Amino acid sequence: MKIRTLIFLLAVITCSMGLAQTVPGDSAAAEDFKPASTNQPGREFPQVNSEGRVRARISAPEAVRVQLDISAVKYDLTKDENGVWTGDSDPQDEGFHYYQLWIDGAAVPDPGSLYFYGASRWGSGIDIPAQDQDFYALRNVPHGQIREQLYFSKSNDTMRRCFVYTPPGYDTDISMRYPVLYLQHGGGEDETGWPNQGKTNLIMDNLIAEGRARSFIIVMDNGTWRWPENVPRPKPGERPSGPWPPKGWADGFMKTLLEDIIPMIDSNYRTLADPEHRAMAGLSMGGMQTRVITLAHPELFSYIGMFSGGSISPEDVKNAPGFKENIKLVFVSYGSHELENPRRGFGGDPKANTGALEEMGIKTHFYVSPNTAHEWQSWRRGLHEFATYLFQE
Amino acid sequence: MKIRTLIFLLAVITCSMGLAQTVPGDSAAAEDFKPASTNQPGREFPQVNSEGRVRARISAPEAVRVQLDISAVKYDLTKDENGVWTGDSDPQDEGFHYYQLWIDGAAVPDPGSLYFYGASRWGSGIDIPAQDQDFYALRNVPHGQIREQLYFSKSNDTMRRCFVYTPPGYDTDISMRYPVLYLQHGGGEDETGWPNQGKTNLIMDNLIAEGRARSFIIVMDNGTWRWPENVPRPKPGERPSGPWPPKGWADGFMKTLLEDIIPMIDSNYRTLADPEHRAMAGLSMGGMQTRVITLAHPELFSYIGMFSGGSISPEDVKNAPGFKENIKLVFVSYGSHELENPRRGFGGDPKANTGALEEMGIKTHFYVSPNTAHEWQSWRRGLHEFATYLFQE
Repeated sequence: MKIRTLIFLLAVITCSMGLAQTVPGDSAAAEDFKPASTNQPGREFPQVNSEGRVRARISAPEAVRVQLDISAVKYDLTKDENGVWTGDSDPQDEGFHYYQLWIDGAAVPDPGSLYFYGASRWGSGIDIPAQDQDFYALRNVPHGQIREQLYFSKSNDTMRRCFVYTPPGYDTDISMRYPVLYLQHGGGEDETGWPNQGKTNLIMDNLIAEGRARSFIIVMDNGTWRWPENVPRPKPGERPSGPWPPKGWADGFMKTLLEDIIPMIDSNYRTLADPEHRAMAGLSMGGMQTRVITLAHPELFSYIGMFSGGSISPEDVKNAPGFKENIKLVFVSYGSHELENPRRGFGGDPKANTGALEEMGIKTHFYVSPNTAHEWQSWRRGLHEFATYLFQE
Repeated sequence: MKIRTLIFLLAVITCSMGLAQTVPGDSAAAEDFKPASTNQPGREFPQVNSEGRVRARISAPEAVRVQLDISAVKYDLTKDENGVWTGDSDPQDEGFHYYQLWIDGAAVPDPGSLYFYGASRWGSGIDIPAQDQDFYALRNVPHGQIREQLYFSKSNDTMRRCFVYTPPGYDTDISMRYPVLYLQHGGGEDETGWPNQGKTNLIMDNLIAEGRARSFIIVMDNGTWRWPENVPRPKPGERPSGPWPPKGWADGFMKTLLEDIIPMIDSNYRTLADPEHRAMAGLSMGGMQTRVITLAHPELFSYIGMFSGGSISPEDVKNAPGFKENIKLVFVSYGSHELENPRRGFGGDPKANTGALEEMGIKTHFYVSPNTAHEWQSWRRGLHEFATYLFQE
């Protein structure tokens, strides 16, 4: 190979890399980057600019390749003379995103960010400022508490943990009793999702301060499911041949919720322990669990919320005796990008299903989060919207 | 250089690396490694063996050097044919240790571990099984709660956060009022230290279940201090020329505690809001804050605990009017290794000081945690011991 050919190929490679990635200096990024609100105390990086680009930086003097991995795209960072690597992502949607760094083939958390549980690991997360971020801002209003509640589960024969939001005044107004929302996370997440990246307490404290939501208790437990014992398990590496998720997938958590969690909450908190004052909601997998559990036990709940987690069809209602009589609201929400690129696996058209329920005489609300996808900003907004409808009758 | 010379040099290098580090295979490590209790759910590494060695493992196919950095020693890991790096540390003290990985010069958290705030960063931590670990085990006993409490601080003109432990039965026995312990973390840590790596709730729940401690509330706030405004600040890179810590270093947190935290706790929790039922304790820097604050305001507290954080001398008592009359117990503890290698900066001989107070007629207790250093196992044991003395008069 001649030298000129080599230089030409290198130029082509460099150009094509330039197209596939964004690097500081030769990128068109607006230079108004600021440290992210999700950074560890005192950390200058990662940063976010007004376009929603993320700029990552890490010192790795001996490394040969460092990448920022966010929203399923890896961006190459470039090294300066001190061994410090820096690089930018493309603009991200408003709100919260999981991400990680790759250092010479190792996927690791960014030491600059706070850590969140999602994608089945504790790792980096970053909040892109949003136009409506004031609804989950920490303000000087009366605040409720997030409580870590440990309890023994008979149905699982083990200690378990949930987080419980109690509204402002819960400890001083000790004659008051409160409705309860059981609120579930998505797949690969756990009971920390809603209190951490979900900003549940701040959303509720702000709504209550504005007089826009009733005060209620929120219970956030761990809905991670295991393969049902009576369904043949696919071999490692094989795709499941039967329906997905497998029949009975939600039975384990349903049993835990009905036999352990609800009775524990009703005996340890000042709840209004009747179906009229009990709601269930969840995001993604948690929405699918909400659907299965409330269709199986409509006698226990009055309000249902599914955030990016399917919908309930007229056919579902016909097969669930008591549903139409008991349920006061079916709330369904999605991020707008999800509706542009529908996800399979949630069953049917969520908007059409919700409209059909309304025609059957069931009160519904269909909410679309603008310019967001299957991500936490959609779910923060979903909860914010849903909460204003809860326990109002 | 001849090939035989090269091979000889490589052999020398390999041998000397073998002496300077511990690697699996050629090390004498007992092969009974198990995943650490502090691992992320489902993660096989890091592991700990019966000697207290830590085995780290990470996939980093393109890396040239990977190290495990624990207890101020870096251990080289070795790469297998799949690009997975593995290596062991020397035996560690029982209990909790912060650690990190180095990948080609980048210091990063281990993606296998849970994360803890200490050394001024959120990062990896690992628990080495301890002979007495049952005292902080999660057992099927009645459990209290850890509550996240947000509040507005007038003295700082900002929202702040603390964690509050309420004992079992707090929500059901609503006529009961409780004593309060204000419990502070060390330097580079924050309000999450005692509830996370400190295991405060489990230590208390177990003691209360055994009838060995009275039920009381514990408040864990953020005692991070800023350089006092009226003391000249050393230039970056310079060592402070005056006393260390600088005069007035504890004034900021003292003001926050007295003007914001204690009144907020007394108005939001069912406390016994008198000095007889108020205690203060802390570890390291938090012990030094406890010393300064209780000597300045002995009229507000009855019980004092300092874990690896200095002691109180007869001279201190003479300069603190009311101290001798009001204080019911001065508790001082250290890890045994700290007493073998005394740390400077905490002032005087803690055992001699404590003995001298006892001779003055002040009740004291001096506790030594066996085979531990300036680390969390000493402080877990310190709290466990201190709690049995609290509010017993």
